[in-house]
Amino acid sequence: MDKGRVEAFSDGVIAVALTIMVLALKVPTGPDWHEVLEMAPVLSAYLLSFLYVAIYWVNHHHVFQLARRVSRRILWANLHLMFWLCLIPLVTAWAGNYPLTPAPMALYGVVMLMCAISFRQLVQALVKCEGPDSPLAHAVGRSRKKELSIALYLVAIVLSLWYAPLGAAIYIGVALLWLIPQQRSAPSTD
Amino acid sequence: MDKGRVEAFSDGVIAVALTIMVLALKVPTGPDWHEVLEMAPVLSAYLLSFLYVAIYWVNHHHVFQLARRVSRRILWANLHLMFWLCLIPLVTAWAGNYPLTPAPMALYGVVMLMCAISFRQLVQALVKCEGPDSPLAHAVGRSRKKELSIALYLVAIVLSLWYAPLGAAIYIGVALLWLIPQQRSAPSTD
Amino acid sequence: MDKGRVEAFSDGVIAVALTIMVLALKVPTGPDWHEVLEMAPVLSAYLLSFLYVAIYWVNHHHVFQLARRVSRRILWANLHLMFWLCLIPLVTAWAGNYPLTPAPMALYGVVMLMCAISFRQLVQALVKCEGPDSPLAHAVGRSRKKELSIALYLVAIVLSLWYAPLGAAIYIGVALLWLIPQQRSAPSTD
Amino acid sequence: MDKGRVEAFSDGVIAVALTIMVLALKVPTGPDWHEVLEMAPVLSAYLLSFLYVAIYWVNHHHVFQLARRVSRRILWANLHLMFWLCLIPLVTAWAGNYPLTPAPMALYGVVMLMCAISFRQLVQALVKCEGPDSPLAHAVGRSRKKELSIALYLVAIVLSLWYAPLGAAIYIGVALLWLIPQQRSAPSTD
Repeated sequence: MDKGRVEAFSDGVIAVALTIMVLALKVPTGPDWHEVLEMAPVLSAYLLSFLYVAIYWVNHHHVFQLARRVSRRILWANLHLMFWLCLIPLVTAWAGNYPLTPAPMALYGVVMLMCAISFRQLVQALVKCEGPDSPLAHAVGRSRKKELSIALYLVAIVLSLWYAPLGAAIYIGVALLWLIPQQRSAPSTD
Repeated sequence: MDKGRVEAFSDGVIAVALTIMVLALKVPTGPDWHEVLEMAPVLSAYLLSFLYVAIYWVNHHHVFQLARRVSRRILWANLHLMFWLCLIPLVTAWAGNYPLTPAPMALYGVVMLMCAISFRQLVQALVKCEGPDSPLAHAVGRSRKKELSIALYLVAIVLSLWYAPLGAAIYIGVALLWLIPQQRSAPSTD
Repeated sequence: MDKGRVEAFSDGVIAVALTIMVLALKVPTGPDWHEVLEMAPVLSAYLLSFLYVAIYWVNHHHVFQLARRVSRRILWANLHLMFWLCLIPLVTAWAGNYPLTPAPMALYGVVMLMCAISFRQLVQALVKCEGPDSPLAHAVGRSRKKELSIALYLVAIVLSLWYAPLGAAIYIGVALLWLIPQQRSAPSTD
Repeated sequence: MDKGRVEAFSDGVIAVALTIMVLALKVPTGPDWHEVLEMAPVLSAYLLSFLYVAIYWVNHHHVFQLARRVSRRILWANLHLMFWLCLIPLVTAWAGNYPLTPAPMALYGVVMLMCAISFRQLVQALVKCEGPDSPLAHAVGRSRKKELSIALYLVAIVLSLWYAPLGAAIYIGVALLWLIPQQRSAPSTD
């Protein structure tokens, strides 16, 4: 099987998910600056989700670059990831409309958790297809960042139900975990 | 004619259809968990339709991979399929907003039936273009799953008008029919 | 300049335009069949516009297939066509919401006219770039269908203001003009 | 790293951003011509933003054509540009709904300013990756148009707060600055 079309399809889904998130930002219903200030929670949620989707796209890009072929299991693992990525605009809008409240913040974490789990499954399917000595397996094996993220999401979901800003802080922390250290260490695939 | 651009265009349409289905999921109008519970029918409809569109994308991927060229008849058969796939977000939203009611459930089946018929026509156009001894013709010829699905959709449409949950059960069954046995038997193109 | 990215970008815009037209179809606000019947004008407008956009995609595909390079003038002629194609969802929704009324029907024609004019300019830019003896110039030169369509749109706009169903009949006629005879004659680029 | 997928992803985001801007144009709520006249400010804002996004796509196309490889820094500079391009539909809808008022016009300028700054950073990242003697560095080095645009946006934002039509005039002027002289001078990358 050819990986080109899987990449193109994933790019399409991710590009549309990124772009329609903006449709969740309702156009202000008045011409004044305070309307923009009232959008601050929605804009913050949008920014965080944009970062997350961008990180997934960059990581998707990296693991597929090291893959040479695509199995049926990989196809469906990829579609599973796309399913959860497609739900990000919905939970972003909910979390932005009701900022720092328990249920939206916890549901945001549930979708993020499922994205992380399905991405981990996708990487495992790719590694299994490539073999344990492939460049992909070596690049992926050097990091436990995916497992750490999953654990942090679980903590954030529980904490959100108790005090929502803690959940938000952890989501921001996980995004930074993926954004910042990648510039230092060589492996770009974890 | 070159098949690459037909694949790219189809990927685009399918990716957008998948992603805008999420726009049919209205953002909850309150910050509580019961809002999410009230979304259960819409989320179920979304999940089923996501599966259907994903199955079409995987099958589209497979038949086009075995095709070597694209005729004008294939172009239009493909556009016919895209027309019906584009209507899936609409019937999904209707079936999710009015769960397990006859008219939305039957109309859902009508769109699924037309997707199945147009996909069958597309495969026939591809086989005709490739010739009866092509790898595509052999891969396609081993299965009657497409015809079985069409018959099941017809049954589901009639049953939906009488008792809608029966229709829903059949739609779920057809999706499983395409998801599960494909892991066992070799032909991935039916 | 490379034509691949122009094709990919055009495919993206056309695929999104096709798919978001469905967002103009409002989900019925009740669970009964008569809701679907009330959607008949909107669905008819959607079907006609889908056909038009599909015809443009097929023709765009054909002329770019015969092109070998892309100039700056071609880039902008293509973006001009994309601008008018992007407006089709808007006029489709208006014409579907107020069926067979003068202003929406005439505006539908204005957008169609501008699509036809900008597509003609794009083809001329491509022919100029390829040269008068190129395969593209020969394929395009055998037909006056583009000019006939432009004339028919002008007639339809004027007639729509007087009696809107006449305009609708002409729009359907132009779509058939492009759909039907292309199966008979060889040139697929006009 | 391969630049093909970065181009394809960027094309997807830009194509969707272009097309969903049309969703900001609300379908007229009556069948009369004066409804279209009332859309004039929204249509003008749409036209201007379409031009801007088109100019970014053309310039993105040009600089990536001269690039040979893509670094991690380029990936993120590109995603930064995509973030601001994705916000254009939002500020376009606001500026169109409240035509020639200070806050929407100034915010439109802020997003345009950030697009210009992030595009400049992207070009600098590409030049740094290609080296100072690369064709890209030579093509880019001949023009100060990017810096001029950034200065004009800053002036327009300030003037908008005082008298909004002045801001609108400058935004139109910057678009023309990019549209018109590019036909005269050779460098197509600035």
